[in-house]
Amino acid sequence: MSFNTFGRLFRVTTWGESHGQAIGATIDGCPPKIAISESDIQRYLDRRRPAQNKFTSQRREPDVVQIRSGIFENQTTGTPIQLEIMNHDQRSKDYTEIEDKFRPGHADLTYWQKYGIRDHRGGGRSSARETAARVAAGAIARKIIQEISPSVKITAYLVQMGKYAANPDNFDIKQIAENPFWTPDAAAAEVFAKYLDEVRKSGSSVGAVIEILASGVPAGLGAPIYAKLDADLAAAMMSINAVKAVEIGAGMSAASLTGEENADEIFVASDNVITFGSNNAGGILGGISTGQDIIVRFAVKPTSSIRTPRETITKDAQPTEIVTKGRHDPCVGIRAVPVAEAMMACVISDHILLHRGQIGKIRPEGEIL
Amino acid sequence: MSFNTFGRLFRVTTWGESHGQAIGATIDGCPPKIAISESDIQRYLDRRRPAQNKFTSQRREPDVVQIRSGIFENQTTGTPIQLEIMNHDQRSKDYTEIEDKFRPGHADLTYWQKYGIRDHRGGGRSSARETAARVAAGAIARKIIQEISPSVKITAYLVQMGKYAANPDNFDIKQIAENPFWTPDAAAAEVFAKYLDEVRKSGSSVGAVIEILASGVPAGLGAPIYAKLDADLAAAMMSINAVKAVEIGAGMSAASLTGEENADEIFVASDNVITFGSNNAGGILGGISTGQDIIVRFAVKPTSSIRTPRETITKDAQPTEIVTKGRHDPCVGIRAVPVAEAMMACVISDHILLHRGQIGKIRPEGEIL
Amino acid sequence: MSFNTFGRLFRVTTWGESHGQAIGATIDGCPPKIAISESDIQRYLDRRRPAQNKFTSQRREPDVVQIRSGIFENQTTGTPIQLEIMNHDQRSKDYTEIEDKFRPGHADLTYWQKYGIRDHRGGGRSSARETAARVAAGAIARKIIQEISPSVKITAYLVQMGKYAANPDNFDIKQIAENPFWTPDAAAAEVFAKYLDEVRKSGSSVGAVIEILASGVPAGLGAPIYAKLDADLAAAMMSINAVKAVEIGAGMSAASLTGEENADEIFVASDNVITFGSNNAGGILGGISTGQDIIVRFAVKPTSSIRTPRETITKDAQPTEIVTKGRHDPCVGIRAVPVAEAMMACVISDHILLHRGQIGKIRPEGEIL
Amino acid sequence: MSFNTFGRLFRVTTWGESHGQAIGATIDGCPPKIAISESDIQRYLDRRRPAQNKFTSQRREPDVVQIRSGIFENQTTGTPIQLEIMNHDQRSKDYTEIEDKFRPGHADLTYWQKYGIRDHRGGGRSSARETAARVAAGAIARKIIQEISPSVKITAYLVQMGKYAANPDNFDIKQIAENPFWTPDAAAAEVFAKYLDEVRKSGSSVGAVIEILASGVPAGLGAPIYAKLDADLAAAMMSINAVKAVEIGAGMSAASLTGEENADEIFVASDNVITFGSNNAGGILGGISTGQDIIVRFAVKPTSSIRTPRETITKDAQPTEIVTKGRHDPCVGIRAVPVAEAMMACVISDHILLHRGQIGKIRPEGEIL
Repeated sequence: MSFNTFGRLFRVTTWGESHGQAIGATIDGCPPKIAISESDIQRYLDRRRPAQNKFTSQRREPDVVQIRSGIFENQTTGTPIQLEIMNHDQRSKDYTEIEDKFRPGHADLTYWQKYGIRDHRGGGRSSARETAARVAAGAIARKIIQEISPSVKITAYLVQMGKYAANPDNFDIKQIAENPFWTPDAAAAEVFAKYLDEVRKSGSSVGAVIEILASGVPAGLGAPIYAKLDADLAAAMMSINAVKAVEIGAGMSAASLTGEENADEIFVASDNVITFGSNNAGGILGGISTGQDIIVRFAVKPTSSIRTPRETITKDAQPTEIVTKGRHDPCVGIRAVPVAEAMMACVISDHILLHRGQIGKIRPEGEIL
Repeated sequence: MSFNTFGRLFRVTTWGESHGQAIGATIDGCPPKIAISESDIQRYLDRRRPAQNKFTSQRREPDVVQIRSGIFENQTTGTPIQLEIMNHDQRSKDYTEIEDKFRPGHADLTYWQKYGIRDHRGGGRSSARETAARVAAGAIARKIIQEISPSVKITAYLVQMGKYAANPDNFDIKQIAENPFWTPDAAAAEVFAKYLDEVRKSGSSVGAVIEILASGVPAGLGAPIYAKLDADLAAAMMSINAVKAVEIGAGMSAASLTGEENADEIFVASDNVITFGSNNAGGILGGISTGQDIIVRFAVKPTSSIRTPRETITKDAQPTEIVTKGRHDPCVGIRAVPVAEAMMACVISDHILLHRGQIGKIRPEGEIL
Repeated sequence: MSFNTFGRLFRVTTWGESHGQAIGATIDGCPPKIAISESDIQRYLDRRRPAQNKFTSQRREPDVVQIRSGIFENQTTGTPIQLEIMNHDQRSKDYTEIEDKFRPGHADLTYWQKYGIRDHRGGGRSSARETAARVAAGAIARKIIQEISPSVKITAYLVQMGKYAANPDNFDIKQIAENPFWTPDAAAAEVFAKYLDEVRKSGSSVGAVIEILASGVPAGLGAPIYAKLDADLAAAMMSINAVKAVEIGAGMSAASLTGEENADEIFVASDNVITFGSNNAGGILGGISTGQDIIVRFAVKPTSSIRTPRETITKDAQPTEIVTKGRHDPCVGIRAVPVAEAMMACVISDHILLHRGQIGKIRPEGEIL
Repeated sequence: MSFNTFGRLFRVTTWGESHGQAIGATIDGCPPKIAISESDIQRYLDRRRPAQNKFTSQRREPDVVQIRSGIFENQTTGTPIQLEIMNHDQRSKDYTEIEDKFRPGHADLTYWQKYGIRDHRGGGRSSARETAARVAAGAIARKIIQEISPSVKITAYLVQMGKYAANPDNFDIKQIAENPFWTPDAAAAEVFAKYLDEVRKSGSSVGAVIEILASGVPAGLGAPIYAKLDADLAAAMMSINAVKAVEIGAGMSAASLTGEENADEIFVASDNVITFGSNNAGGILGGISTGQDIIVRFAVKPTSSIRTPRETITKDAQPTEIVTKGRHDPCVGIRAVPVAEAMMACVISDHILLHRGQIGKIRPEGEIL
């Protein structure tokens, strides 16, 4: 079965193929009377749009969102919101070369294995273009969060490109918008620029690591056992194209810690406010938010569309070589940054509504016990 | 909301607290006429049972499963299967010390923050004891897989303990059952034994990395976009107690690869059989199985129950110190191995049924295109 | 697929067969800190228990409920509640006669058609015994409602037996507990007694109509379009064994009304309180509660277990006759009364939580606009 | 929460308001490689379209469907299908009169009570216009059924208008398309015509009963306990605007039957084919299809938009009178006929996929045991 919906109370269904008529998101479960306009959504789509500089795909998609339903006189009505983005720059001919071949490392193969049919124009449903619909949905999610838990701030950024890692000592949130890589380390931005230019010119591609920070999240969000906040975040991030790993807090390195090192000690700061000695937990214990910053990281593999010939097979199971020309991102991880924020927003807004349903109210920021 | 169910067609609901009357699993959606007896389930529970050697908790839980419903004359009827395990060794007094304090790094705090009430006897619902119910459910899932896709083999093992990693060059699947750590590297088993003995004696604890290998999985399983096979696996593994990261195939290291390195080239082996030059994908592309081995890894943090005093607070927000005595696992990752296999089995069996629903049949092993 | 769960946030999964070890209900999503004891549940089970008089099955099931999890020191913890009822009076030999035959009008046939296997001892999973688990779950639902919306009162009663209808002019809620038929019409109770005695002695059976009244329900509950309050109630009632029709408010007779007759006119009673000129809507418009009484009725067919011989076939498709001896209810509708209340309670509690999740608060009784 | 999705594997999410930009349906879970074109869908929309004669609303909606995604070269790809219908004839000024008043018997009131905001232009989301999206989705469902169970035939028709019932002795399926009321009784069609003309001229409205017949349905479809085929049908039909009751087979009259009368006796017709002496069950026993005709009926109340003044209140809780002018259906039940067929098709296609998932194959027609 294809399952194109995520969320339990705040539910997003995305639809559409990269080279079809349109893509979009159907959003159900949004609370009523939240002020939302098309420009509130458009600003996030603009951040994800390709061709804004030489480091992303040169495909020119204006990605203009239209609200088809669910918002009346600039307010949500509590009924389904349909967001639609028409497709424009459909140079399907770029894909003639690969119509009968499978790109190694690409869903070309598996869609064919599963369905026995594929829309070979640019990946169809498996294209990263689908993530534009997530970004649109994320804009709605942010509005809900802002209404109910205004303390929440969600920020994603790139912390590694290929073998080059940014240095946390250099992190400055204000730098994120100042470079084309969404990295908070200005020095790393220069390294990334030089490196990615080489990668791009050679027709190659490279992976990346993205980190998402959600601060001001109320304590108590999360739904054990099988809808834990971290389990939902893991699924949300792993569902993004090309993601191969998800970490919460200390992540893989938690395996190397001792119990003493790992324990985030708890201190009383002032009335009803507690602080922690560290944040190995990444803000989540037992699947429930602690009130500390939620920290998630994920690794994006390099795109499989490269100019170097690779061995593959045809649909008729004949050996062949493949070269992908098209207009692809040399580091698809860059454009994953706004997508990561959107997925974080969707998960948090869903858990805010779930928590309110079961418990009745959301803790204000700072109120911890 | 608490959500204690996972799966879409093969659905498992677990229930019960560590120190309540019983724990169990309610399994819905199982196909009819599959032969299952209590001993088929018991053998997996026995692998997870504590106190089998000095490296795991000395709590003595016989963990005897009873089938309450859904199986008639040793065959599934297609109706809900209730599996129940009575609790026995409930030394709740071990927990008096911590009744009013929160263990740093433990769900003690967040259950209190969310619900305003907690079963302080050993963690209640957040206890790793809940995973016994998963292992029981996993035994049912394996039977379904065996019936429909008998080629599938699922094997989990420990590949890292604290800072000590096993060496893949030494891996021998037969070794897994030969040491108390479920590691396929006999040399590493000796290192782990010495190290964990020290950790145990010092009252400390340590993390671990577990890898799960599923071979013989038919191509085509998976449900894009938001029920991708890897997204479901990420959620399933992240829902296990103490897990902080999940990797598929190359995992976090995919970020460091170039497109050339990452692309798993495809070759024709024989009629309808293809092979791959590598397996960075971990057997999954676009959320759908390729027919290659599925490879998942996750990191388990060290248990928060340690004898070294840590700073914390009381329920009344007063500063205090905490020391956890009890009978805890020095490396809880060891007993996560059978749990990991169970979760893999549950996810695969669910996707087998989902695939059959939408597509009508499961590909036989080897038939790739 | 078998789907043994209902509800979205307040979720009930029932399990167990009539002649297996036990039956029960796994309840997920209950708010924390609600006081519940076994006796709170037992009192509702006692109302449904058979063999309390000559008008119901003489099967003697003590139906003692045990709380296995989710309640600690007599309070809900917000984690799954497992309710279990052991089976006792399993005179399976009563069923030898029908082991290889299908009772006309019974699920014997269809379980066999679907699953190719059936637990022939008394209906297995299709037995009305499953409804005991619903009654237990309903007791939990009532506690939630009492906590959040204490004005709600739920009362079901029998309004028709066979061709004999109770007279609404005689209805007196206090009469319901005074006769073995749960009917509010004392005069009808006498007619029913005489009629059912004849039916019982002749080994026949007869149908019934049950009405459920929920008063004090806050305005605004319901979730258009496909989880309308009335749609959820229709599914809940139709899922009860032997139910063949569900009506809301005017029900089938709404078809005969004109727009003028059907319109429930609205009047201002006092500040924030409105009244209606009539209640054809049965308290629900557009799938959302109006604040008026919610009125639901359903028809129960006569049980198919009768002593008169009927033509049927064997499992080997040979023609034969069947006579069902056993100890069956001459009017299974009587014991459907507490089940109907339980289903109403489950639906309302689910919608209270859903409403609170999306909207944030439940309207107090009387506050209408 | 608003829940605008129905179905488990074949899932339909409808969206859009009567006077917004567009309405539509997002369909997920469709099997791949099914041939579908826009004209396959359009033919069903054309049957539902208003203003085809004087007996339905004179609103002129061309209701042209566009396929936005999920179909490539006229075949389903297994990914979400987006169907969109632009709104055109939006005479919102018709609604100025009622902007601040609530129509008695209409969801105007309850949407306001729930959400505190409403799209007063023609009912917004609660408008029967939403059912156009269901009809479009139903066309996809029919294609799935045709592919997997080609023997299934679905036919709905009107059997009662106000107090005038059609006579089953006169039923001729061929007559259904020959009159504007979709009734199989040619004599009744004349009665209906005369009666409805009077109703229409007087500015009144009237209710109706619709029956849906699904023949050739394979035995074994259905998912006990809480997704019984009849429970799903009850929810599906009750979710249609203005429906107040749903009957299966004998329906409400089952209450008046004895066990002898109700039992549908079973006979052997020929190898693997059985017949029944009657069909009180309406083709469903224990929630599972028997192979007999599935028969469902529902009652539609008269539309609340009438020209006779009715007492009501304003949004400010002031008493007032209301008269609804607009262009409304004097008998909204007529246009419910194609909607009823669509809902039946959606439920059956979902259960076909569910059954295939759990059991592996669908029984061919006629194969009963």
